Amino acid sequence: MKHFTSIKQLGDLKEALAEAAYVKANPFADQALGRNKTVLLVFFNNSLRTRLSTQKAALNLGMNPIVLDINQGAWKLETGRGVVMDGDKSEHILEAIPVMGSMCDMIGVRSFARFESRDDDYNEVILNQFIQYAGKPVFSMEAATRHPLQTFADIITIEEHKTKARPKVVMTWAPHPKALPQAVPNSFIEGMSMTDYDFVIANPEGYDLAPEFVGNAKVTHNQDEALAGADFVYAKNWAPYREDIYGKVVNYDMGWTVTAQKMALTNDAFFLHCLPVRRNMIVSDEVIEGPRSLVIPEAANRVVSAQTVLKRLLQAL
Amino acid sequence: MKHFTSIKQLGDLKEALAEAAYVKANPFADQALGRNKTVLLVFFNNSLRTRLSTQKAALNLGMNPIVLDINQGAWKLETGRGVVMDGDKSEHILEAIPVMGSMCDMIGVRSFARFESRDDDYNEVILNQFIQYAGKPVFSMEAATRHPLQTFADIITIEEHKTKARPKVVMTWAPHPKALPQAVPNSFIEGMSMTDYDFVIANPEGYDLAPEFVGNAKVTHNQDEALAGADFVYAKNWAPYREDIYGKVVNYDMGWTVTAQKMALTNDAFFLHCLPVRRNMIVSDEVIEGPRSLVIPEAANRVVSAQTVLKRLLQAL
Amino acid sequence: MKHFTSIKQLGDLKEALAEAAYVKANPFADQALGRNKTVLLVFFNNSLRTRLSTQKAALNLGMNPIVLDINQGAWKLETGRGVVMDGDKSEHILEAIPVMGSMCDMIGVRSFARFESRDDDYNEVILNQFIQYAGKPVFSMEAATRHPLQTFADIITIEEHKTKARPKVVMTWAPHPKALPQAVPNSFIEGMSMTDYDFVIANPEGYDLAPEFVGNAKVTHNQDEALAGADFVYAKNWAPYREDIYGKVVNYDMGWTVTAQKMALTNDAFFLHCLPVRRNMIVSDEVIEGPRSLVIPEAANRVVSAQTVLKRLLQAL
Repeated sequence: MKHFTSIKQLGDLKEALAEAAYVKANPFADQALGRNKTVLLVFFNNSLRTRLSTQKAALNLGMNPIVLDINQGAWKLETGRGVVMDGDKSEHILEAIPVMGSMCDMIGVRSFARFESRDDDYNEVILNQFIQYAGKPVFSMEAATRHPLQTFADIITIEEHKTKARPKVVMTWAPHPKALPQAVPNSFIEGMSMTDYDFVIANPEGYDLAPEFVGNAKVTHNQDEALAGADFVYAKNWAPYREDIYGKVVNYDMGWTVTAQKMALTNDAFFLHCLPVRRNMIVSDEVIEGPRSLVIPEAANRVVSAQTVLKRLLQAL
Repeated sequence: MKHFTSIKQLGDLKEALAEAAYVKANPFADQALGRNKTVLLVFFNNSLRTRLSTQKAALNLGMNPIVLDINQGAWKLETGRGVVMDGDKSEHILEAIPVMGSMCDMIGVRSFARFESRDDDYNEVILNQFIQYAGKPVFSMEAATRHPLQTFADIITIEEHKTKARPKVVMTWAPHPKALPQAVPNSFIEGMSMTDYDFVIANPEGYDLAPEFVGNAKVTHNQDEALAGADFVYAKNWAPYREDIYGKVVNYDMGWTVTAQKMALTNDAFFLHCLPVRRNMIVSDEVIEGPRSLVIPEAANRVVSAQTVLKRLLQAL
Repeated sequence: MKHFTSIKQLGDLKEALAEAAYVKANPFADQALGRNKTVLLVFFNNSLRTRLSTQKAALNLGMNPIVLDINQGAWKLETGRGVVMDGDKSEHILEAIPVMGSMCDMIGVRSFARFESRDDDYNEVILNQFIQYAGKPVFSMEAATRHPLQTFADIITIEEHKTKARPKVVMTWAPHPKALPQAVPNSFIEGMSMTDYDFVIANPEGYDLAPEFVGNAKVTHNQDEALAGADFVYAKNWAPYREDIYGKVVNYDMGWTVTAQKMALTNDAFFLHCLPVRRNMIVSDEVIEGPRSLVIPEAANRVVSAQTVLKRLLQAL
């Protein structure tokens, strides 16, 4: 594995899950691999779980993490080509990326969708420039269209809790006051396509995700129907993908909030969410604090997910 | 020691001081204890000494420190229960805390009094939620009502410089342009109650501290009287505790500034302050730069204080 | 070497270059030197290269780096003497510096020219207070008048690429929308004075640098004349030194931008710049992306430069 930007790059999922289980049981076993290796964590956007879990994963592997918040203490970066840089941006990303690459052994990048241009977002303009110019392995800490370290942690968590070979997993849209990227749901769909779970997507009309991600997955606009018999409910908000309303909040339907009443439709499903979560918008207090909520072990598995991926990147150096 | 939120949790003070002296003389002796242990330092407020000294203490112990500034690069946290989170706060502290806990071995928290509600401050709403939900040992890096790592450093410093068994120690209020929390003075009183020093508190009327902290300590509203014969002068501003003026600046009396003239009333006293200090408000240039000022060795002892506490927390893991 | 604030403190340049070459070839050879040593990196200003390269250099040497951004999460610092601190600055640099010094083994400081007073800038008011009060070795990570770690990296890069004993090196001013400090050009002149290169400075009238730095260096106001036959072109903007226009943008002449046409005047010169660089102001896309651009290897040598200096400071502890 040279770079890690999509869950599909894990290859055989069973093997990856076995590796993750090993890493979880033996967190400090591979420190020889990471000795004198530095991982640079570049944040264009806020982060809590990714910030902490990737540092912890690196430290477990004996690596040196260096955190760089681009908007705090570095220079504002120009990303366009051919620009006369007479404004507030002091540095071009075409210099910044290879410089960063020259000072570390691998680079993690967080760069959210900006919702200025769907094409720019879906072409992963920032992430791909890192891959092209860093000269070092690049891994996504959530890019415009995918969040594979999250998806891997999600699947690890489902595997740890499933009680049947082929659980029903429902990813349901839920309301949120601001427009959120599609990286998490896109990536979760990719992950689900690597399993044989019974997977269903539920979202309001207008909120269908990009066809290139949805593929053959089942989609319904009826949340209750989707939830019936679910073993896992994966809640998430996302803004519309449809060109004319891309990145806009057009639906704020509190009828989609995941409440105890909604969960009663399921097969006593576990509740999953990538966090951060808006309580009483996405999910009620009762559900997220309830005994079937897995949000904390799911977040804790972010360390396992990151460590498994960093270990592979180290092995491929 | 499971958590560390009050100086009283040190138990026997003589024993703790002996441990501190050992740590100071042998800063790198206990690195086996800290190996592969990660301490997360969570700052809701600014910090210089605490930020540096706690990192240094952790490194001395062979630990990995991870710093998290909540207001820089993480998500704004909701702290209220039952809130519909449709505003600017993306994450609830009830998720954030256990997530943080799942990614480290212990957590330091800095969370100042907010002066919005005396009850909230004195109930230590933030710190206690960390203790309740982190699932890991929690230590205070200054909370709403106490700053025990500071107090321990203060006492270490007094012990290093006292020339009599029972020195007279005066904690005096001094003027400041903004309302400051009562954590440092409250905590200092707690610390003094563990010694047999001759301890006196001097503050203007209206500035009496919380009775639950003051206890049986001597309090006077006459600074000059208090300073007479003092061996140590501990200067500090705090905002009023009294309900009707809680957290407000009602007195700006420059007659309380600790000047050379004031120090002349003492028994050639040493000058102490926790820093940061407003020069020529709290204390004159002359006094803080003078030969009896201990503010720098006092700050340097913050490493010793933190390292002694972290060592105990490691031993109890 | 006790402190490092000027390239001249390297002493014999050939020896320093040999050490740098050794460090570059054996980055992890000296970790015994740095064991249990902490370097504090204090930033009053933004940084990308210096932030990353100094951390990497310290890690390569087995040291613990601690980064402190003064304007993010610490206290605003008062720098004037005798001030009644009743404004927005909570701490005086006279306390902050020795406190920082007490918590580390050496201190790097970035403190740019402020352009408020030429005398204050050229007296290095901030840096010199660190040297006076920190009680620990201090090194410049770019101060008001010099950037010696940059200059050392520049010379290492020239040495690696020169194809004749005495290359012609031209430092040329180029336009920029904001007023920039003179630290890089001043320091580069100092560095050039330690070599026997054929060195020429080209800048518009009104932009002559401080005589104390220029010394006997050749200066021309005709860029084309300077570029003729150049082997290395070092582009840089700086604001005027002249008292009446100190720190102001008085010339925005795009005729000084380093373009392919300009480079055609040279002896197929290599292009150097310290970065960050404003594209199509300082230099055209074509030149900076061209095969003779050395800006990335030059930046990468910042690790080598910093590591060589930190190693010397460690050896002198």
